[in-house]
Amino acid sequence: MSSNSFGTLFRFTTWGESHGPAIGAVIDGCPAGIPLSEADIQPWLDRRKPGQSRFSTQRREADKVAILSGVFEGQTTGTPISLLIENTDVRSKDYADIKEKFRPSHADYAYMAKYGIRDYRGGGRSSGRETACRVAAGAIARKVLGDSIAIRGAAVQVGPHKIDRANWDWSEVAKNPLFCPDPVMAPIWEKHIDEMREDGNSAGAIGEVVVSGVPAGWGEPVYDKLDSDIARALMSINAVKGVEIGAGFGAVELSGEENADQMRAGSEGKPIFLSNNAGGILGGISTGQDIVARFASKPTPSILKPLQTITATGENADIVTKGRHDPCVGIRTVPVAEAMIACVLADHYLRRKSQLR
Amino acid sequence: MSSNSFGTLFRFTTWGESHGPAIGAVIDGCPAGIPLSEADIQPWLDRRKPGQSRFSTQRREADKVAILSGVFEGQTTGTPISLLIENTDVRSKDYADIKEKFRPSHADYAYMAKYGIRDYRGGGRSSGRETACRVAAGAIARKVLGDSIAIRGAAVQVGPHKIDRANWDWSEVAKNPLFCPDPVMAPIWEKHIDEMREDGNSAGAIGEVVVSGVPAGWGEPVYDKLDSDIARALMSINAVKGVEIGAGFGAVELSGEENADQMRAGSEGKPIFLSNNAGGILGGISTGQDIVARFASKPTPSILKPLQTITATGENADIVTKGRHDPCVGIRTVPVAEAMIACVLADHYLRRKSQLR
Amino acid sequence: MSSNSFGTLFRFTTWGESHGPAIGAVIDGCPAGIPLSEADIQPWLDRRKPGQSRFSTQRREADKVAILSGVFEGQTTGTPISLLIENTDVRSKDYADIKEKFRPSHADYAYMAKYGIRDYRGGGRSSGRETACRVAAGAIARKVLGDSIAIRGAAVQVGPHKIDRANWDWSEVAKNPLFCPDPVMAPIWEKHIDEMREDGNSAGAIGEVVVSGVPAGWGEPVYDKLDSDIARALMSINAVKGVEIGAGFGAVELSGEENADQMRAGSEGKPIFLSNNAGGILGGISTGQDIVARFASKPTPSILKPLQTITATGENADIVTKGRHDPCVGIRTVPVAEAMIACVLADHYLRRKSQLR
Amino acid sequence: MSSNSFGTLFRFTTWGESHGPAIGAVIDGCPAGIPLSEADIQPWLDRRKPGQSRFSTQRREADKVAILSGVFEGQTTGTPISLLIENTDVRSKDYADIKEKFRPSHADYAYMAKYGIRDYRGGGRSSGRETACRVAAGAIARKVLGDSIAIRGAAVQVGPHKIDRANWDWSEVAKNPLFCPDPVMAPIWEKHIDEMREDGNSAGAIGEVVVSGVPAGWGEPVYDKLDSDIARALMSINAVKGVEIGAGFGAVELSGEENADQMRAGSEGKPIFLSNNAGGILGGISTGQDIVARFASKPTPSILKPLQTITATGENADIVTKGRHDPCVGIRTVPVAEAMIACVLADHYLRRKSQLR
Repeated sequence: MSSNSFGTLFRFTTWGESHGPAIGAVIDGCPAGIPLSEADIQPWLDRRKPGQSRFSTQRREADKVAILSGVFEGQTTGTPISLLIENTDVRSKDYADIKEKFRPSHADYAYMAKYGIRDYRGGGRSSGRETACRVAAGAIARKVLGDSIAIRGAAVQVGPHKIDRANWDWSEVAKNPLFCPDPVMAPIWEKHIDEMREDGNSAGAIGEVVVSGVPAGWGEPVYDKLDSDIARALMSINAVKGVEIGAGFGAVELSGEENADQMRAGSEGKPIFLSNNAGGILGGISTGQDIVARFASKPTPSILKPLQTITATGENADIVTKGRHDPCVGIRTVPVAEAMIACVLADHYLRRKSQLR
Repeated sequence: MSSNSFGTLFRFTTWGESHGPAIGAVIDGCPAGIPLSEADIQPWLDRRKPGQSRFSTQRREADKVAILSGVFEGQTTGTPISLLIENTDVRSKDYADIKEKFRPSHADYAYMAKYGIRDYRGGGRSSGRETACRVAAGAIARKVLGDSIAIRGAAVQVGPHKIDRANWDWSEVAKNPLFCPDPVMAPIWEKHIDEMREDGNSAGAIGEVVVSGVPAGWGEPVYDKLDSDIARALMSINAVKGVEIGAGFGAVELSGEENADQMRAGSEGKPIFLSNNAGGILGGISTGQDIVARFASKPTPSILKPLQTITATGENADIVTKGRHDPCVGIRTVPVAEAMIACVLADHYLRRKSQLR
Repeated sequence: MSSNSFGTLFRFTTWGESHGPAIGAVIDGCPAGIPLSEADIQPWLDRRKPGQSRFSTQRREADKVAILSGVFEGQTTGTPISLLIENTDVRSKDYADIKEKFRPSHADYAYMAKYGIRDYRGGGRSSGRETACRVAAGAIARKVLGDSIAIRGAAVQVGPHKIDRANWDWSEVAKNPLFCPDPVMAPIWEKHIDEMREDGNSAGAIGEVVVSGVPAGWGEPVYDKLDSDIARALMSINAVKGVEIGAGFGAVELSGEENADQMRAGSEGKPIFLSNNAGGILGGISTGQDIVARFASKPTPSILKPLQTITATGENADIVTKGRHDPCVGIRTVPVAEAMIACVLADHYLRRKSQLR
Repeated sequence: MSSNSFGTLFRFTTWGESHGPAIGAVIDGCPAGIPLSEADIQPWLDRRKPGQSRFSTQRREADKVAILSGVFEGQTTGTPISLLIENTDVRSKDYADIKEKFRPSHADYAYMAKYGIRDYRGGGRSSGRETACRVAAGAIARKVLGDSIAIRGAAVQVGPHKIDRANWDWSEVAKNPLFCPDPVMAPIWEKHIDEMREDGNSAGAIGEVVVSGVPAGWGEPVYDKLDSDIARALMSINAVKGVEIGAGFGAVELSGEENADQMRAGSEGKPIFLSNNAGGILGGISTGQDIVARFASKPTPSILKPLQTITATGENADIVTKGRHDPCVGIRTVPVAEAMIACVLADHYLRRKSQLR
């Protein structure tokens, strides 16, 4: 079943396991004539790349991408773009222990129930390693969208620690390893994650993606709504357990009057909105305001703390997960979420064009 | 674009506007040989039906469903099931005022930006009326799933008022018009909504759907995850702005150790889980635990309070939305959310069967 | 499974059985702002309508179409267009005999093998009656394509009698009940079909559709080729057993040199082709030449001649099919084939637009 | 657009250009637990491989396939199977001449009209080289289907020379380089192709695929009919211009009585058919008889004969196509057609399972 593909017109398919020879993606539906080379993709992969600080897994992967098709003389040709990333730092022996035991809150047990067979090495297909392919696809989606659309992400909460939105500074995001836009909060998060990691434990996080420059009129009611597709995209990322748009869950406590994004006449017949509780989407269609989406990542399930579990043969056991894992997987989810939203938008951009007269 | 369809193998397509002659759905992919008549669908429609209390819109629709195809001698034949519901209580004149003005936080402006034309009568296609078709499709999905799977929903918060989970009693849900499982909370909500309604205002709500009986192994990594599909399904419902699975956003504040749903050996090789922070889904696949999903509905945007807006020609205006509207649209979203999740599950049930050897 | 839908961006879904209360179609993906009323659809339905001459079934259906959604103030709104056609002339008792017996070369046995249940009345879902919905969808597809594209069909062979292409005159097609473009051949066909009908037998036919005005560049390599989609579209019509494009099977006996559609410089950089063996499609993409497709319809399987068959319980039996049937079903397939090709082209027109920069 | 994918549940996506570094396929939807290694795929690739006789292109490709994902410890895991085949014998300089000129009856002009850019080296994406990926996917489809289903192909006509069906011997097919089942005809074809090749010309061919062992009940009315999907599959193969099922175009000259595949009671309630004009499919559903499909391949368009054409800038020119080409591309289409039909059947096998109760 094509459950490893995403998108309708801008569509990508990913493949590969954590400890196989390589992972990759095939992007189908990229229009022809777009300048593209590995140099357009690599920086985004580097941003997600593991092993860059003590706050991510210590697996060292170059994550060097090769374009195998779909580009000729520096431009896309309209044919499928095949991307390949080799796995170079594989230590499968670390996973011998989980061969026979299911990690609690990990996909191990569910995969075995579904497939009756499981590539246990590093989580196999359920590993966060697959998300590198999403980031690569997202880099191409950004090229399709062009420079007038900016897709930026940040972490806004780690464990119980929320940023102060008054301190939000996009330029801070690249200055710390935690994608934190609040310079006051960044060291607090570092301390929290350090404590968790040193304790063999892990932390959760909330990320936020803000998209500027999307004109009004993108999206498809009533089932392929722009926000439905964003919700699906974000919820498909490993460890994500919640998604919200604009005011999200907070809208519940507002009255209809408070929640209303009132409008005043702007230039060229476009409204000026007096607030953005809608997060830029109404009725599943963009309004021209910034699109704002948040996602909640649970704490990394692979921890050194001993947990109660069962074995593949159904007996009680304790498990301590070695291997190399992110102490707060939600952090590195930020560039992945950006990429997924880029892909959703590239798709709806093409869908939008198909209906214009 | 087939954006009015939902599902892969169990797939339905809806059509119709709030003030057109009828609305309807075509369900394709329902297996043959399932006993089915209008009597299997009508009770679910009745549950969602407007005009049953002062807490929903006063529009009086019988919502009587007719099966036009796909059933022969009381059984499904495997061919498309066409359902038709007539619109009987249409008062389009109520909407004359919104013909030229965009309701803030409603789909009006976005539809006009997208399509350049808009059936303004009662919200046209963006009306909550469309959700009756979802409920009808969901009734058939329940038949596909059979009696071993129970899909139950409730409201858990209205405005700022959260239920006390210690009071949860499923039998209470049918006893009040607000799908409230907490008998202590129900009157508090009634009062809150009454106040809002009398003030020409509206309230938000959180709903929760719990599914029992889904075996482990349903769902499709990595993009058609069970939770991704649920997120998309719920986010596609009018007014929903947030979705979470299991502990959801709350998981962020848990440590990896606290969040872990530890396991003990159960019968037939199946685990007994010691908690359900995962909400029954790991790696996009069901674990056999209850599936738990929550959704946040913003307050109804159509209110009697005057709001600032612009006209279709771009001038400033004030708007007061008459017509008949739910004072808390999130309440009637509960049966709609149940139906959407039933459809997601029926789809994954069929997908699951296709892969069994 | 959505096997009752056709198309990617311009997508329609049909429903209904031969002897049910109605049949219908939902067209999703029709762009907004196209003038549309029943009057745009009815003439095409009338052309396919049964009971208009002794050369078609004597079932009398008005085939009156009603638009239930998707059109507002005379224009499409971009939302799904629901079409409904009532069945008015149903004589189910004619089919009592086939309730227990399978008609040879009809879908009866296959449906029973697949579904285990069968609406035997008039062929149920497998009836040619379903094709009225295709013609209705095709009428809307023509509106999407606009007047610059002409889609015209004709019959070119009935039984062993082939037209003389030197006599081809499009204006003749509407002058006889057999869609025959060759005035010399029309009476020969009438005589052939009369003889077959009077003998309780039936005849096969070949039809041809020619499309003018499609610019170069429509179509999608490598699996959604324009000719692949046309082949699928035509082969999906009841009784069709063969499809060819351009020179088709005849190309096999040509050498590469003979088959080559050589080119000379034309105006605006476009080529003038010296022949059209390609039938207007190369590499799955239109070349700007006329698109030419032919389809072979087997003789109607429901005949009065006694045939050997088996019963639902597996015993030998003879069958004589009463009811009302076309003596040469391939004739009325001509407007259906036009409609299917119109839908394929509307779909690729929208797909094309999505990729233009 | 995902036009480089094929199938619904058993779905593959291909990528790669003739003269790029590699070509490949990703197969999604293969059930878990099927034994699979490169050794299951390679023999089928070898059968299609170029350079094996003077009757195919002289390009020498090892066509060695590598499995990069989806298989663990010798079994499929249910995750995507990525296949990679390197291009090793690339002589792009042969194609310098076609950089600026469009080969008549080739995809060159159409690709340029569609994309505005074209990888002219060896035909780029429109090259027959892509079909190696189809054969690889087909090899996996055969594993899904299992040994009870036999899919066998042969050529039945080259240029004007048709086989004598009385001579049909499946064991002959592997004994000559032309997949000819008629030992009397094989040398006649060899002579015909030799003459064409020596003259710088090329020949057309008809191939036939026969599938035994498919039970009754596979296929999906009314648009995803088994024969519709086969027609689409075969028409998507380079150079194919016609497809027919069973008696195909020949059915047109039969009467309804002659065409009827009459039935007698067989064992286990299954019919014995007295003929197979239907080619094993009625109403889009398999009947249990052999499935028989034929396809017409036009003569290879790349020939040494000088032809009139135009240049990329719209001027008249003559073209002589060097490079290495099959003198009769229809021959090597036989294993490709087998593979495509295997993929269609694997897909419908999984779809069938999803609907069984």
